[in-house]
Amino acid sequence: MLRNVLRYSALWCNRALIMPNTKPPVLGASEALSYHKEIMQAQEALPEAQRLTPLMTIQITPHTHPTDIALARSEAGVVAGKVYPRGMTTNSENGVLNYEALYDVFGQMEEVGMVLSLHGEHPGEDVFCLDREERFLEILQKISYRFPRLKIVLEHVTTAKATETVLMLPDTVAATITVHHLILTLDNVIGHMLKPHHFCKPVAKRPGDRDALLRVAMSGRAKFFLGTDSAPHPRGAKECADGCAGIFTAPVALPLLATLFEGRKKLEALEKFTSVFGAQHYGLPLTQELVTLVKEEWQVPHDIDGVVPFMAGETLAWKVYP
Amino acid sequence: MLRNVLRYSALWCNRALIMPNTKPPVLGASEALSYHKEIMQAQEALPEAQRLTPLMTIQITPHTHPTDIALARSEAGVVAGKVYPRGMTTNSENGVLNYEALYDVFGQMEEVGMVLSLHGEHPGEDVFCLDREERFLEILQKISYRFPRLKIVLEHVTTAKATETVLMLPDTVAATITVHHLILTLDNVIGHMLKPHHFCKPVAKRPGDRDALLRVAMSGRAKFFLGTDSAPHPRGAKECADGCAGIFTAPVALPLLATLFEGRKKLEALEKFTSVFGAQHYGLPLTQELVTLVKEEWQVPHDIDGVVPFMAGETLAWKVYP
Repeated sequence: MLRNVLRYSALWCNRALIMPNTKPPVLGASEALSYHKEIMQAQEALPEAQRLTPLMTIQITPHTHPTDIALARSEAGVVAGKVYPRGMTTNSENGVLNYEALYDVFGQMEEVGMVLSLHGEHPGEDVFCLDREERFLEILQKISYRFPRLKIVLEHVTTAKATETVLMLPDTVAATITVHHLILTLDNVIGHMLKPHHFCKPVAKRPGDRDALLRVAMSGRAKFFLGTDSAPHPRGAKECADGCAGIFTAPVALPLLATLFEGRKKLEALEKFTSVFGAQHYGLPLTQELVTLVKEEWQVPHDIDGVVPFMAGETLAWKVYP
Repeated sequence: MLRNVLRYSALWCNRALIMPNTKPPVLGASEALSYHKEIMQAQEALPEAQRLTPLMTIQITPHTHPTDIALARSEAGVVAGKVYPRGMTTNSENGVLNYEALYDVFGQMEEVGMVLSLHGEHPGEDVFCLDREERFLEILQKISYRFPRLKIVLEHVTTAKATETVLMLPDTVAATITVHHLILTLDNVIGHMLKPHHFCKPVAKRPGDRDALLRVAMSGRAKFFLGTDSAPHPRGAKECADGCAGIFTAPVALPLLATLFEGRKKLEALEKFTSVFGAQHYGLPLTQELVTLVKEEWQVPHDIDGVVPFMAGETLAWKVYP
């Protein structure tokens, strides 16, 4: 799977933040190093200019210790630690219920300059699915005020309320937006037929929420940048009685963004959203590599090595060349 | 399929309202007569005491004419005409966009004593999925005030707001409630894994909505009665890229209701909800046939002739005997 899907990101991404909620999860330096090696090996068949640099993350669980942070940073160059709320998304059984119990871990991350990456949904079993992101914002605020030098990213925001809160908080707090959340609403998941290939976490919300995401993504504000959350699941794990959350957007992300930004006469804001603001927040130098976007129609395959990509079968208006 | 699933309703139902959104649809007297015959034939292998009497309905479409109503009533004994909003549920491509254009049809239904059965979701493409029922209530009010002798049923209500509106309107307006809407919320559909076997239209809503349904179902108010909306789809039509809406509840409906009513110390209200209020609203005599509910554990099959029933694999506390 890794070998099959990686090239769709590597074709247009110079760097990629590698999520740690794999099976088994990436919990510390040693797992990060071996996963890094796997990713490099999986790219050996690709032309050198079409490989990406994996930026490794670890998963912060209730069992993470501050020394895990220090080691992951010094020995594996891990750039971010990600916290999942328990049971709320794919492979999050080992996720977190009590964020305050992790404050010594967050303190260590602040100390060594590791970014805190948050799946922003409240882990309470009694919190209704559509309210989980909004209910999480209180947790986000508390962490950001308690650790004023900790860089934080609220990942894949889906609500107008989340964009407002991120704008209000200090500059240490930024947010990523996925391509699919700029396009989908809940109507595309459950509004007519049930669409497992549009199902992700957090689930897409109302049209007004999507419009708020479009506005901030194109606003030129450095607090909002692309995070694709591209998640390839085999077709059988989506089209079944217990469908996995996650959308495979890597093959279509940049063409779709070009269409969205062009449609609102904001093409000049695209590069900052995809390639500048994220690097700045992570304190990384800008890459000098370029990717070419051509206005050229092409049809998205119905299937890519057993995975149904986002917009399968649709005709897109822009095409990526390395 | 008909032969396979019918016995699960016939085991405990003396009469059943037969929905017309089949393929092809039941649009008038002749289709109603032949579908009635099919249903009777499909029951021939059952013991006589375990057969049900089908109460036929027709679908009201933009092409329905008042004479279709008169004929369906006089020649096929059709008891209700059902209106589907276009494109909003299974086989509703021929549904309605403009309800006022059907006022002469509704007038004829009032005249001949045919019940108007409404799938209560607004057909506007721009109406967000979770708002469709609430937005439909205005249409319901208008029809009920315009035709004061027309018996109306708002089918399978899912929101607190709908229950309030039905309570406020004249006694000609009643509502059905399904078993699954007394149990599920949207959390059971998209809250964790994607659950196609919990997907139906209208989609289940918030916990507060479900609680409102439980309250009115057990309130002893004659305006609210059971309508199972039991909808068997082959597994492949649910576990796929375009999943059908509908839940097969017939094999488990009465046991689940007994558990719900017992849990709230309202078992004495169960018979009115299942067997009295509906007949009264339709102006039908009460049946003298009895069904036996025994407190006895049993496991719901994982599969019934290729259909996954509601609560598949679960252990239920009550069991039905004919």
